[in-house]
This record gives sequence, C-alpha cells and structure tokens, in this order.
Amino acid sequence: MTQQTPKPRLLTGDRPTGRLHLGHYVGSLANRLSHQDSFESYFIIADLHTLTTKPEPNYIKDLPFYIREIAIDYLAVGIDPNKSTIYVQSAIPETFQLNLIFEMLVSVSRLQRIPTLKEMARDAHISSMPFGLLGYPVLQAVDILLPRAQVVPVGKDNQSHVELARELAARFNHIYGQTFDEPQDLLSDLPMLVGTDGKNKMSKSLHNAIYLADDAATLSEKVMGMYTDPTRLRATDPGHVDGNPVFIYHDAFNPNLQEVAELKQRYTAGKVSDVEVKQKLIFALNNFLDPIRERRDYYHNHPMQVQDVLNHGIKVMQREAKQTMEIVRDRTGLSYSADLAMDKADLFGQYGG
Amino acid sequence: MTQQTPKPRLLTGDRPTGRLHLGHYVGSLANRLSHQDSFESYFIIADLHTLTTKPEPNYIKDLPFYIREIAIDYLAVGIDPNKSTIYVQSAIPETFQLNLIFEMLVSVSRLQRIPTLKEMARDAHISSMPFGLLGYPVLQAVDILLPRAQVVPVGKDNQSHVELARELAARFNHIYGQTFDEPQDLLSDLPMLVGTDGKNKMSKSLHNAIYLADDAATLSEKVMGMYTDPTRLRATDPGHVDGNPVFIYHDAFNPNLQEVAELKQRYTAGKVSDVEVKQKLIFALNNFLDPIRERRDYYHNHPMQVQDVLNHGIKVMQREAKQTMEIVRDRTGLSYSADLAMDKADLFGQYGG
Repeated sequence: MTQQTPKPRLLTGDRPTGRLHLGHYVGSLANRLSHQDSFESYFIIADLHTLTTKPEPNYIKDLPFYIREIAIDYLAVGIDPNKSTIYVQSAIPETFQLNLIFEMLVSVSRLQRIPTLKEMARDAHISSMPFGLLGYPVLQAVDILLPRAQVVPVGKDNQSHVELARELAARFNHIYGQTFDEPQDLLSDLPMLVGTDGKNKMSKSLHNAIYLADDAATLSEKVMGMYTDPTRLRATDPGHVDGNPVFIYHDAFNPNLQEVAELKQRYTAGKVSDVEVKQKLIFALNNFLDPIRERRDYYHNHPMQVQDVLNHGIKVMQREAKQTMEIVRDRTGLSYSADLAMDKADLFGQYGG
Repeated sequence: MTQQTPKPRLLTGDRPTGRLHLGHYVGSLANRLSHQDSFESYFIIADLHTLTTKPEPNYIKDLPFYIREIAIDYLAVGIDPNKSTIYVQSAIPETFQLNLIFEMLVSVSRLQRIPTLKEMARDAHISSMPFGLLGYPVLQAVDILLPRAQVVPVGKDNQSHVELARELAARFNHIYGQTFDEPQDLLSDLPMLVGTDGKNKMSKSLHNAIYLADDAATLSEKVMGMYTDPTRLRATDPGHVDGNPVFIYHDAFNPNLQEVAELKQRYTAGKVSDVEVKQKLIFALNNFLDPIRERRDYYHNHPMQVQDVLNHGIKVMQREAKQTMEIVRDRTGLSYSADLAMDKADLFGQYGG
C-alpha cells in the first residue's frame, strides 16, 4: 500500500455583494473548476469583507440572500461539494480570533503601503479610512492561513495581499515557532473580461455585467445593447475585431471556432451586420448558460440542499479552524479557551448565577 | 411584591502582567469593594490587551500564571464572586467578533488622536505603531459594551477611552438601531499612589511597588529602603510631611489616626527618626496585609476554587456576550452563526468529509 500525498490546499472566494457574472467565470470560476481535482479547494464566501467598505444596513441586509445565491452559482457551474469546501467566513468564530492576533503583528505603516487599499477606499467613496478597512488585508491573511492554505489563485493586483499573508505567517513563525506554511500565489494569466460597455472590467457596480442567472430575454437585451466597434457605422463598413467586446465574448464562450473565425473575417471585410454577430453570440451564450440555469433552477427548488452544502462546508472549516487556533492559542498564551470553561463550569454550582 | 430595580452594570479590570500592589488597592480595588453592593460588577482580566504592546513569548508565557494570581488578589481583598463576575477576556469568543465589527465603525484618524496611545507606544518602546495597538481603544470599547456595562470607573487619563466607547455605541445605534446604552464614566477622585522611590506612580515596571502578596520580610525591606524627605539628614532635622511617601502610606493604610498625627508632629519638629516612622508603617501595613495574605494562602492551597471562580465568571460572561452578539449579528447581517451550522450539519451526511 502506498500512502497518497495530500493535495495542496487552495483558498479563494467571493464577497457576497451580488450574483456571479461572466467576468467571474472567465477570471476565476473556470480556473477553480480546472483545479478541483489537483487541489483541495476551500471557497470562502467572505461576508465580513463586505462590512469593511459598506457596513450600512441597506448594503448588508442582502448578505444572507447573496450568500445563498453565490453558493448556488458555485454549484451551478460545477463546483462539487464532495471535493471542495464552501463556507461562510463569519460562521467561523476562529476567523475573528486569529484576526485580532494577526493585528498585533503588523504595523499601521505597513498596511498603509498596500496600494489596493487606497483604491478600495476610493471605490467605496470613503473620505476617512475606516480602521477596519485598513485591516482588510490582515483579515485576508486570516482567510488564507486559518485553513492553512498553501496556494492562492490571484491576479496581479492582489499579489500584495498574499505577500502580506506570507509576511504574517513568517512573523508568527519567527516569534512563536514554526506554525504556518507561507502561502504561494497561483498567478492566473486569464484576462479580465470587459463589460458590455466595452470599456471597463465587467462589474456589478458598473451595470455592465451578464449574470450566470440572467434568463434568455435579459441576455438577449444585454447583448443587443453591447458596444462593438465605435468606428463602424454600417454593416458594410470594414470593422475591427481586436478589443471588440462582442468578439472577445465569442472567443471566450463560443466553442464553434470555425463560426467565430468566419464571423471575424466577414466583420473585417464589412460583410456581416452587428446584429448577426450578436445573435450568434446570444446563441453561444445560451448554450453555455442553459445547463447552468437548469442547475440554478434545481437548487432554487431545493433550498435545503444548498443549506446543507453550506452547513457541511462550515462544519469542515470549523474543524480545520479549531485545529489551527488550538495551536495559535497555545503559542500565544491564550490558554483559557471558551470550550474548556464551558465544559468545566457545569461541574461546580456554588457561585449561583 | 415590588420589583427590584436592576443595579447598574459596572465594568473594570486589569491586564494580567503582574500581581496587584498597594497602588492598585488605593487607586482601584478599594473603590471596587465599596461599589460591590451598589453595582453589578464585571471584572475583566484583559489578557488580549497584553498582546497589543508585548506579543512576544517571553512576555506572554506568564499570562496563565498572572491570570490566576490576579484572580487570587481579587478574592483576597474581598471581591465576592457571588456578587461580581470575574472572567478572562480571551475566553469570550464574542470579544473577538464584536471587535472586528466595531473596527468598521471608527476611522484610523480618530484613533490616532487618542493621546494615551502615543504614551503606550512610547512606554512599550515601539518605533512603528502596531495595527493592533492602534486598535486598543476599540477593544476596550468591546470590553465595556459586550457585557452592556453602563458605568466604567476611570481615571482622568483614560476618559478618552470611555468616550470612544460612547461614540461606538452611538454610531452602532445610529446605523443599526438602538442596541447599546452609552456607558458613563465613574470618575474616581482617588489619588495615584506614589511608589517606594517617592518619585513615580507605583508600577511593576519601575520596581517601586509593594505587592499584596509580599511577605513580612519583603515588606520590611521595601519600607526600610523607602525614600522620605531628601532634605532631612538627621533625626533631629525638622522634616517635611507633605509629599513624603512614608506619610502618604501612613495616611492611606494606618487606621491609628492619633499615631499618624503624632508622628507627623514629631517629624516636623525633628523629634522622630525615619526608622521609627518606617517601623510604625511596617506595623500598619502588616495589619492591613495580614488578612489578605491569609486569604491568598488559602486560595493558593485551593487552586481548584480559584479555577471554579474563573470558570463560573467566564460562563456568566459568555451567556451575556452571546445575548449581545445575537442582536449584533442579526443587525449586521451576519446571520450564519456557528452554532446554527454546527447543530444542523450533523443532520445531513451526504457530503462525506
């Protein structure tokens, strides 16, 4: 009998601020599916990160709804809860505990040097940096290190966060003894998907997104309204294919390579209308989305199965988190664990209360 | 039958960095004893605050020891665990949870304006402000608001912390609806006790402290080595009583007012030696400390009773904290509580793991 080498553990996830769209699929979900057998994947639905920029009730009232929708999106694209762990960040008590401890091990100025923070504050229209937002990369380090993940799929702009996680792991190890593996980037070379406006990255807040949950009528309307080549006024004008969002989507989602090549040729020669190119894109996208929609419908009709997946993931992650924090608490001198007190307190009754 | 008005809830405590000394008694413990019947007191042994300035193992390795010693000091001076709740900060999981949420509700610049922070950083010889130290007043607000305390005994230099707790309560209430009472200062007009060096506030780190745990020989040595009136060289020189630490201690701990008055008179007239004044102080301090020492001995010989007190206090506080956090989690949209998932996850087995 040979012992199986454990798969490297991978951590990634999403903030539950909206449903997932084609940009998420191209930029991340496709990658996750292809990694599903080579890594032990942990997918965190990071509700606490939502509070860092938008703690107000009108933003957070939908958290429970979007947590469920994102879980459904995961399942609908083919993430297998038997292979991967899907869980909710705030349901893991140790998240909060490790966060407070890591906060002791990094300086204010180190965090202020992280470029994405300034960006986030700007995007959230925040004039004075909230303390919790400055701590956002610390919480991300917790997300990574609490399940002891070794690998983090990441785009170039978020490498600085994994770098901080490595620093915190190293600093903890240096002070308290070897505890955490330093996590590695799994740099994704996937392009960001442009939105239907043809200008910006696809994003909920920019209203340029096609969602996995969009029905055929919504999809059709969005594609027909897409920007194409702004220099082309008539179907008989020669058009540009490069950087043209309609063709970017064809390349990404139309498996009929011959059709795409032919459309590009005709477009460049001024021999096809935008409408035809778009109708063929709608057809391709419907082919791509139909099985996803079907599975979304199934899970919408079986909400307890979604709840089970989350509960199971939370349970698995709670077990992992507990293991990590037992070591961390022991090494940081926080030996009065809650469980211990709970267990023992019931044995003695002389103090009333 | 008339219904009893509930007593206002009071929160105070100590960092477990050393045993308690006469300075603690005069500045705080005496006050706590006198409040014990008029308030519902919560005494927090704040181990997490120790990490904010000194997270290194050589500082924290003694946390469990000092937690127990401080509990023994509390019991030995007469704090009654049937009336008051003594608990360990890090044993309350909700401490960490409320802390992360409060961190979202205060800006970096607001925290940087708190004067005590700069002082703490200086005392701890910290060149670059740790993020967790900047968050220290937020964690104090958690200490106060998690048990929903209404009253905080506080010296002038820490009023700014209670002010921040009020601000955080108000901000939370404003955003999420009325949840927390705004806690009030109970400004103590007790003087700070000078150390045996006659110069600085009595403090462990300045090695000028007389501990509740000091035995008679140690006490005698410390008192005999005390600074008195530096202008007085001989017993026949007229001496100064005001600001003279030996007389400050007589005033604080010698109940024989006639003896103290007579000693002062003779001292001013140059008719008593330092040695006699000190010997009478040793006698008075031994009278004061003897019953405390006896009770300390008792608890040292009955360690499980101390453990029971802590376990009971932790259990009471965990119940209060849970009540607070249930409301907070509900209002902040963090509805995936750990318990819920734990309870439900066992019902379903289809996802293996």
